[in-house]
Amino acid sequence: MTIANATKRLQDYLGERFSTQPAILQQHSQDESYFPVIQPDGVTFPNDTSEVAKIVAICAEEVCPIIPWGVGTSLEGHALALEGGITMNFANMKQVLGIHSDDLCVVVQPGITREELNHELRNTGLFFPIDPGANATIGGMTATSASGTTAVKYGTMRDNVKAMEIVCADGHIIRTGNRAKKSSAGYDLNALFIGSEGTLGLITEITLKLSGIPDKIAAATCCFNDIDSAVNAVISIIQLGIPIARVELLDSIMIQGLNLWDKTFDLPELPHLFLEFHGSQLHVNEQAEETKEIIAEFGGRNFKWATHVEDRNFLWRGRHNSYYAAKALRPGCKVLTTDSCVPISKLAEAINETTQEIERSPLRGPIVGHVGDGNFHATLLIDPDSTEELEIAKQISYRINELSVRLGGTITGEHGIGAGKLDYMPLEHGSAWQTMQLIKKALDPKNIFNPGKVVQIA
Amino acid sequence: MTIANATKRLQDYLGERFSTQPAILQQHSQDESYFPVIQPDGVTFPNDTSEVAKIVAICAEEVCPIIPWGVGTSLEGHALALEGGITMNFANMKQVLGIHSDDLCVVVQPGITREELNHELRNTGLFFPIDPGANATIGGMTATSASGTTAVKYGTMRDNVKAMEIVCADGHIIRTGNRAKKSSAGYDLNALFIGSEGTLGLITEITLKLSGIPDKIAAATCCFNDIDSAVNAVISIIQLGIPIARVELLDSIMIQGLNLWDKTFDLPELPHLFLEFHGSQLHVNEQAEETKEIIAEFGGRNFKWATHVEDRNFLWRGRHNSYYAAKALRPGCKVLTTDSCVPISKLAEAINETTQEIERSPLRGPIVGHVGDGNFHATLLIDPDSTEELEIAKQISYRINELSVRLGGTITGEHGIGAGKLDYMPLEHGSAWQTMQLIKKALDPKNIFNPGKVVQIA
Repeated sequence: MTIANATKRLQDYLGERFSTQPAILQQHSQDESYFPVIQPDGVTFPNDTSEVAKIVAICAEEVCPIIPWGVGTSLEGHALALEGGITMNFANMKQVLGIHSDDLCVVVQPGITREELNHELRNTGLFFPIDPGANATIGGMTATSASGTTAVKYGTMRDNVKAMEIVCADGHIIRTGNRAKKSSAGYDLNALFIGSEGTLGLITEITLKLSGIPDKIAAATCCFNDIDSAVNAVISIIQLGIPIARVELLDSIMIQGLNLWDKTFDLPELPHLFLEFHGSQLHVNEQAEETKEIIAEFGGRNFKWATHVEDRNFLWRGRHNSYYAAKALRPGCKVLTTDSCVPISKLAEAINETTQEIERSPLRGPIVGHVGDGNFHATLLIDPDSTEELEIAKQISYRINELSVRLGGTITGEHGIGAGKLDYMPLEHGSAWQTMQLIKKALDPKNIFNPGKVVQIA
Repeated sequence: MTIANATKRLQDYLGERFSTQPAILQQHSQDESYFPVIQPDGVTFPNDTSEVAKIVAICAEEVCPIIPWGVGTSLEGHALALEGGITMNFANMKQVLGIHSDDLCVVVQPGITREELNHELRNTGLFFPIDPGANATIGGMTATSASGTTAVKYGTMRDNVKAMEIVCADGHIIRTGNRAKKSSAGYDLNALFIGSEGTLGLITEITLKLSGIPDKIAAATCCFNDIDSAVNAVISIIQLGIPIARVELLDSIMIQGLNLWDKTFDLPELPHLFLEFHGSQLHVNEQAEETKEIIAEFGGRNFKWATHVEDRNFLWRGRHNSYYAAKALRPGCKVLTTDSCVPISKLAEAINETTQEIERSPLRGPIVGHVGDGNFHATLLIDPDSTEELEIAKQISYRINELSVRLGGTITGEHGIGAGKLDYMPLEHGSAWQTMQLIKKALDPKNIFNPGKVVQIA
């Protein structure tokens, strides 16, 4: 009953698909968060569900932690082996198992990335719309309930994962959900496992909802004199029910970073909205006209369309790389990113207080957000060698999280809890966190699945 | 530790808001299902959450079952005291606690019905769109994950319940969810309690998503020579992504019943679709034109618009009363209703096989369905005094359920499991049903919440 026994047995079982090579351990020792490097005791590369089940059975007997790994783009230490144990890398499980065009869904293995999936779908007229920026795996996105720029129209992983195959803590395999549009057949296990961050079971197959590629896509940018006007324009767009597909806020500091990161952007250093509309030609025009009127009402200007696919790609490449654009403002820095999501009516208040919070500190922290959802990120830029700066960033983060909950929102709209936000769980959930721990204990009594994340087991 | 102790203590605690009067017990002894009458040991009428919590604490100590009750419209025996115990009627908890128009949501107590709620919202420009036909309570609808005619556009209760207050099995109170549009903060308890049918906790407060009343609503009916053409037209409408708000199928026998139930209908006795479009004037026209073309392609005719609110209400009154219209075909009968929901591509096959199944039997069973979701009901008409007919109906139901699962769907799209579909849980869920029982045991270790429903505890 030790991790050492587990690694020995896994070596025997998997041969060279179990690795303790320094380079491999190193590769699995950090994600994109500010967490210190920490190595697992070994890395497994299962080829299929039955191997996952066998690995789990061995680890359950040996009480050895298992940490699932996609491509390591998580931001809160989700995929780090904080209590040792073995990392399970799903790189060998990235097949598309079936495309069901007539039911608008696809069945995939967890290791496929969202870009790979959309490449596979290229001849179907369908696409998988969820877009967190990073080219994460579908397994990772499901496990963290990811979303991103398109959530305002297409929802999050919670709205787009229809069914899963899951390996449970004793190695037995279950299926959650089905391919029908709705079901009232008992507890919604599918919803329970989405966003459970590998702490309740390992996802080995996922059925995703797909969307038809819209007849017409049009994107645009515009700028505002102040952030308040930009946010109030967004609130108005959402409250009027305009079914916009993307509406992203970049504050003036983030625009500065973007211009630095790629000089072809050359945008005025003012708060910007990046917008996108999907639908029929007629419907897109209608939405765009209504939106333009609202933006003008709030003093928005420099309205520039990007209808050609190359222009749109250029625009969204900028938005998607805001993490790196932010880093361009302070070469060599690390980033602590907040992830507030508040009711839309509280968005202006939340962004105002966040901005003031950052301005009162010695740090810079450009703000970017999927503001149509009420979700925004302060990307706090810190010197990697300064524990003092990390401490200041954490204090700012604490106050922003406290604010989000106070305004009726959440500490994390899309990044998840991991280990980084564990301490905030009582703040958001009160005693409902205890209910989560009861579920964890019931489904993973030995606490082998990604221990130290989401819940705290004594 | 007996039910008798519990009733005595509840009498002391609640006075006349605890009742064992025969008329009251009788009122809580049957829902709208085919189940035999069974009386609870008493009925409580709590006034607020703290009273619910106290009642639960007493019942937990005495190991006395608690069965939540809305208005008794459930169809699978959900609200029956099958193992004795006390029924909790939420009639005194029907307040609207807050309307948050700017965030498109409302906070209510569970005892309010959906029609009462929409009446309260009448001056806000907003409405609560979920419409199961019956004027059920919001608590009941949440507990069964109800949906109905509008689910094709607005989703089910799973998509429209944002947050809840819940009294747990030891009497402590938790909150699930929040008012933000999305969250990745841990296990989705909100989703777990939706559709848990009162078996995991008692819902004492619900935050619902609201929708803007569309600028334009247009409804229409049309008929087809055969049911296959009607279903294939619907499949085509859905696969083309037309955002229709309602698309209901009524087979020729159901139309016969409707004409009998209210002679003003006077529809040709052929399969019909009842349709509704919501949106801007422009967008509704666009949807309606596209839909008409598809319907014509499949031989649909007699396309009749109902744009005036009175005409629309007349039309939907007919659809909503299909339960009674079906009963009009056989006065004095009882009804066993199936609730298949299959992937849209399998809908024609599912309805065909269901029709044949009924035709092979001596029973009549008109079919009606929210076919845009792949959901349809065979309403099997049985002599209440014939155990033989009930047995035949159950056999038909078994084969329809088996078919639904085989086609990748579910045994219940919107009615829930209750006691009536308990035996089918292994068919649909396999060993995932065991996972549900682990959760039940973790959250309600004494099995006091609505025992005998959803899960089976030894």
